Amino acid sequence: MQSGHPLDIATQLTPEGDGRLSGRTTADYWNMTGPYGGITAAILLRAVVDDPRRLGNPVALTVNFCAAIAAGAFEVVLVEQRRSRSTQHWSVELRQAGATTATASVVCGLRRETFAHAPVTPPRLPPIEEVAPADTSGRMNWLQRYRFHFAEGAPVFGTVPLAQLGSARSLLWLSDAPARPLDFVSLAAMADAFILRLLQVRGTFVPGSTVSLTTYFHATAEELQAQGSAPLCGVADARRFNAGFHDQTIELWGTGGTLLASGVQVVWYKE
Amino acid sequence: MQSGHPLDIATQLTPEGDGRLSGRTTADYWNMTGPYGGITAAILLRAVVDDPRRLGNPVALTVNFCAAIAAGAFEVVLVEQRRSRSTQHWSVELRQAGATTATASVVCGLRRETFAHAPVTPPRLPPIEEVAPADTSGRMNWLQRYRFHFAEGAPVFGTVPLAQLGSARSLLWLSDAPARPLDFVSLAAMADAFILRLLQVRGTFVPGSTVSLTTYFHATAEELQAQGSAPLCGVADARRFNAGFHDQTIELWGTGGTLLASGVQVVWYKE
Repeated sequence: MQSGHPLDIATQLTPEGDGRLSGRTTADYWNMTGPYGGITAAILLRAVVDDPRRLGNPVALTVNFCAAIAAGAFEVVLVEQRRSRSTQHWSVELRQAGATTATASVVCGLRRETFAHAPVTPPRLPPIEEVAPADTSGRMNWLQRYRFHFAEGAPVFGTVPLAQLGSARSLLWLSDAPARPLDFVSLAAMADAFILRLLQVRGTFVPGSTVSLTTYFHATAEELQAQGSAPLCGVADARRFNAGFHDQTIELWGTGGTLLASGVQVVWYKE
Repeated sequence: MQSGHPLDIATQLTPEGDGRLSGRTTADYWNMTGPYGGITAAILLRAVVDDPRRLGNPVALTVNFCAAIAAGAFEVVLVEQRRSRSTQHWSVELRQAGATTATASVVCGLRRETFAHAPVTPPRLPPIEEVAPADTSGRMNWLQRYRFHFAEGAPVFGTVPLAQLGSARSLLWLSDAPARPLDFVSLAAMADAFILRLLQVRGTFVPGSTVSLTTYFHATAEELQAQGSAPLCGVADARRFNAGFHDQTIELWGTGGTLLASGVQVVWYKE
């Protein structure tokens, strides 16, 4: 454990032997009726990151949210599926009372010097000093674990739907609160730290939840270390809301315009 | 089986009881040294689609390519992890000689009338009659299973690297060859039918392969049926090539500008 940071406490796992680890949910990252999805993603990734068999660093993470996670104890079951010289595949499950509540796959990869190319231009936003922090006081606990400075597409959190739909795009400065040096575990959590585009577009609360979340880690360990606890530039958008499901796309950029992570998720919604 | 179409033959599975199914690779979708990744995705999805326990239709698919798949027999192992009123989570594995060569997660969802919104503009490209078909004769077998009409970013397939890097973006008309009415299984295959952006950008062959592939099915069954065998508009791009891995993003649009599927993949490359 790096410190008493809420993220480290929330993702702490105790090895119980035979690929099983035990943990507990924490109030610090509570969402409406269960843990914030990003913290579940971080827990499942941390099981791999802390495993002595790990090859290189995380490259890809997919988390499937199968059922509600209750407050209290959980078990993580970790299986190394295959490894080659350059890649390693893991399957991870989160279980409560013997039932699977989340499944994940993690790909780790050995990074090395190769051809490098970044054809996409980083988004531009004003310096963080010129962008007001969002006031999330009194809202869900997990929102208190991040500092959000929205340059575009700030959430409305209204009590009635917007008369005209809001933009699905948000552009913001994002960092852990309290500050914490960036690593793969916190990056996995942050990749879900965008308000559901459903709420963003409609401006009010609508029952919905993420069913599947995929994050790619473009960053090397050195790049994360260089980033430290400086805020990331985040961008989120969506393409289609239809018949009870919508997609959500995100990017997290580091200082100097380095793409550190990108992600997609699919969200179920009720009406 | 719908017909003698190569896709239906390649994805044919025989239930062996207890969530196990047997199948065989086919030459029709062969890539350089193993089956085309899209056909493996289609096989793993078809195991779910054909299962009588299926709830609604596919919403999300993630396939992890763990190891080389050899020509010949394989086994598919299917586990229904959880189901709720609206969603159902499956884990699927492809095994050869007792070893896991690919893993997948599939989310199915019950579609119903809800709020609908499509904030993204479809890409524009000339009518298919005005875009020349790509000549893939003599190349890998799986390329013969599609008709590609590139409006932008046609593959170079050169013998030496491009002096100036090519664009990572391609825009094309894409359809099965021979023609086949679109369904979730063929859409899953097509989501991988974009030449690796690595080869596109560099203009020549470089050893590399997909390690993880995620596809979201935005389309309802009715929309797929309406599409029939008409060509789809496909767009592919990439954001970052670095230290042995790059991402790839795709969208598949139907007639009338309906987003039918979107996807991401992460590709390992050697140098």
